Amino acid sequence: MDNDRLTQQLAFILELDKLKEILRQSRLINSRRQENSAEHSWHVALMAMVLAEYANEPVDATHVMKLMLVHDIVEIDADDTFLYDDTGREDKLEREQRAADRLFGMLPDDQGAEFRQLWDEYEQGDSAEVRFARALDRVMPLMHNYYTQGTAWQAHNLRVSQVMDKNSHIEAGSEVLWEKARSLIEDAVDKGYLNQG
Amino acid sequence: MDNDRLTQQLAFILELDKLKEILRQSRLINSRRQENSAEHSWHVALMAMVLAEYANEPVDATHVMKLMLVHDIVEIDADDTFLYDDTGREDKLEREQRAADRLFGMLPDDQGAEFRQLWDEYEQGDSAEVRFARALDRVMPLMHNYYTQGTAWQAHNLRVSQVMDKNSHIEAGSEVLWEKARSLIEDAVDKGYLNQG
Repeated sequence: MDNDRLTQQLAFILELDKLKEILRQSRLINSRRQENSAEHSWHVALMAMVLAEYANEPVDATHVMKLMLVHDIVEIDADDTFLYDDTGREDKLEREQRAADRLFGMLPDDQGAEFRQLWDEYEQGDSAEVRFARALDRVMPLMHNYYTQGTAWQAHNLRVSQVMDKNSHIEAGSEVLWEKARSLIEDAVDKGYLNQG
Repeated sequence: MDNDRLTQQLAFILELDKLKEILRQSRLINSRRQENSAEHSWHVALMAMVLAEYANEPVDATHVMKLMLVHDIVEIDADDTFLYDDTGREDKLEREQRAADRLFGMLPDDQGAEFRQLWDEYEQGDSAEVRFARALDRVMPLMHNYYTQGTAWQAHNLRVSQVMDKNSHIEAGSEVLWEKARSLIEDAVDKGYLNQG
């Protein structure tokens, strides 16, 4: 056994514990507490298993699962950047790339490269899998908002045009899910969960 | 599009949100708050990716990941049963099977059967993947205990013989990880995190 290798791997696994402390804007449907990025990652990985049939093109569902499990690890250092925080999003990629260097650099080289490749693919790729993965990452926050009567939308005083604009790329991953998402958004406006305009 | 099918699938996905409210005995390393079963599932799924090379026999790591993502969903109805709660464990399988009937029954038949098969395999199977998956599910709580100075062990006044007994089947999945786990347990006794006897 190569003890240094296992030591590096276990140090990375311990470090992952910190993603459970990174809070998102989404609120859980029952308790209304803020969701964290680790449990979010689990949820969207399972969505990949359940909803893969709705990708615009056939996708390897297990590859989408891996993308989902890995896509937010960088937030351990870079924190979660709210989708509608345009200032925070200006240096998001730079902050996250530094985080990826440090975090995936904790792993043995071969595995560090594998994780980095998955994360780079999620951030910058354009495969059917990535487009579908990004769609899933948007659909769940819409559902969280809808089923908490727009809690995060209201907290940030968002308008329907902003929500439509930031989520319309769901369509690039799944026309079916975008149709569903759009009808949720429209219904949210009708019900007063989301501001017009 | 078959709207009933998508409606069923989205109802299941919404239901999954509840696993984030199910608390385990393990404490997070930094904040010391109780871990929930959703973020735990994410963590052990990633452990499958990182540690697959230590399984006693070659395993399909993506299959182990799926087992980990699905293995605790039944706790939405059946709650988490602490490993050392021998009374709670008497009717655990019965409670969890009822939960599996209801929860996986929310999905369209084909997917419900797929999820049920994964969960049945985790609970009752004996493949190399399952033995390795069960090992991962034990290793992380040991690490949580060790790196929180035995918080959950102390809360339940556990002795080293109980911890050894409940975790020794790690060896059936991975001799390498069991060697590591045993040395953590022994070191925990030396440091006073875990009671002798």
